[in-house]
Order: sequence, then structure tokens, then C-alpha cells
Amino acid sequence: MIHINLICLGKLKEKFWREAENEYLKRLSAFSKIKIHELKEESFNEKNSPKIIKQKEAEKILSILKKQDGLIIALDEHGQQFSSIAFAEKIKPAGKITFIIGGPLGLDESVLKIANLKLSLSSMTFTHQMVRVILWEQTYRAMMINSNRKYHY
Amino acid sequence: MIHINLICLGKLKEKFWREAENEYLKRLSAFSKIKIHELKEESFNEKNSPKIIKQKEAEKILSILKKQDGLIIALDEHGQQFSSIAFAEKIKPAGKITFIIGGPLGLDESVLKIANLKLSLSSMTFTHQMVRVILWEQTYRAMMINSNRKYHY
Repeated sequence: MIHINLICLGKLKEKFWREAENEYLKRLSAFSKIKIHELKEESFNEKNSPKIIKQKEAEKILSILKKQDGLIIALDEHGQQFSSIAFAEKIKPAGKITFIIGGPLGLDESVLKIANLKLSLSSMTFTHQMVRVILWEQTYRAMMINSNRKYHY
Repeated sequence: MIHINLICLGKLKEKFWREAENEYLKRLSAFSKIKIHELKEESFNEKNSPKIIKQKEAEKILSILKKQDGLIIALDEHGQQFSSIAFAEKIKPAGKITFIIGGPLGLDESVLKIANLKLSLSSMTFTHQMVRVILWEQTYRAMMINSNRKYHY
């Protein structure tokens, strides 16, 4: 059983994204033990500039992250792109993975520099809610690939 | 109002994908008139090799496609990748767009060669159900970008 942590900002607001996540978490439970750390998003206001929001969110992320070991993967639109097979190969040796998905503004440099891998899912910009669901689907796909099981898509 | 056609194989099986599609179709209705042509998937069996399945599916697609004009965009994992902003720029001049999403085996060459653009959403392989939802979200995002409207993600 691989241990997977997800550190993310805010909840999945729409019911269909929550149900999509639940479906993939259910499928992933055959391969992994998953813990989701849903941190509170900072809101925009006079005192909270985008820079300060990212810093405050980074402090919360780092407080969880410092207790983690294993492979740390930060989702970052400027990160590296992988084919599904190469991604499966990348996570294959890991006994523990921590994924980090930032809020709408992305992740602060202080978090990015700690990550072992900065991962981009696409050249396109996705909502951070979609990123969460796509990431679970790709992780499930990776587990299926790594255990030589067929996955109809 | 931009006219958008989607030609695709099979239905969205999971309720959460149907609800996600409905949400984006609702949002897109402010900008566009959409028609979805859901064609019947061919099933694997002794008589239906992957090559024959793709050909049979292509015949069905082409029978709809020959009635279409405007910009024809085929989703293809070996296609071109765009940033969301470049994609918005690409579809901006079009009064009519036809998107084509193949089945699990992808699209036959006879369909791909007719397309004005072969579009890849990611280096990763997504399910064709996810592709459909992501495509609507990116099309909605493009419409928001092209009308200079803010879209929180």
C-alpha cells in the first residue's frame, strides 16, 4: 500500500467534482491509503494582496509538509509535463507521495523549492478543482499501469 | 452567437461527468448555440478489430461532418498543445466550430486529415469522458478571455 497525501487549498465547491473525486478515491483505495489536508483559502481584501495571500497559504502548507517524507510533487503550471506512462514510471518507486495543489494564485516559491517534482498537467490553465480530479485519475491510471492492469478509457 | 457542434462517440456514462458537462453548457449558453451529436460506439468483438472499429466510427463521424462548415477541431493526443490564451485567440475569428472527440481508440486518419486543427489537451492520456468536460471548460474559458471577462479559477 502506497501512502498518498494531498495538501490543497479550499474545498471542492461543486457536487459533481466531489462525486468525481469520490469515485477515483474509491478506485485508488485498492492500491493506496490516502489522506487529504484541505487548508482554508485566504480571501482577497485590502490587507491581503496576491503576494501576501500566497505567503500565508505557503505557511499553512509548510506546517503540514514539514511532517512529510517521501516524494513531494507540487502542481505548477510552469512545471514539467509527462505522458501518463512516464508519470507512472516516476511514481513507481515511491512508498509515500505528497501532492500539493495551490489555490487560484498557484504556489509560493517557498513551497515550490521544497518539491522533488514540479508537475504540469497541461499547457492550458485548468481550475484548481479540475486539477484535483485529473490528478486522482492520473494517479489511478499510473497504479493500473504499474500493476500491468488494463484500464479502458 | 457562435455555433458550436460536438461530434463524439458514446454517452457520458457517469452522472458526475454529465452534471459537469451540463454546468459548462449552461455557462456557454451565454455565448454560443451548442449541438451535441452523440454517435453510437462500436463494440469490440471477433468481427470488429481496432482498425475496423475506427473505420466504422469514422464513417459515422464523416456523415455528420460533411454537413458542417467553419473551424473543424479534432481532439488528438498527438495534436498541437495550446495555452488557454492561445486557444482563445485561435477560435476567436470562428463563427462556427465543430469539435470531434473519438472513442477510446482515437480518431481514424480519414477524420484527422479533414480537421483544420488537431488539438491535444495534455501530454497525459485522459479518458474521452474527461476530454469532453475539459474541452467545454476550456471553450468557456476562451469565451471569457475573448470577451475580456474575469474568470476566477
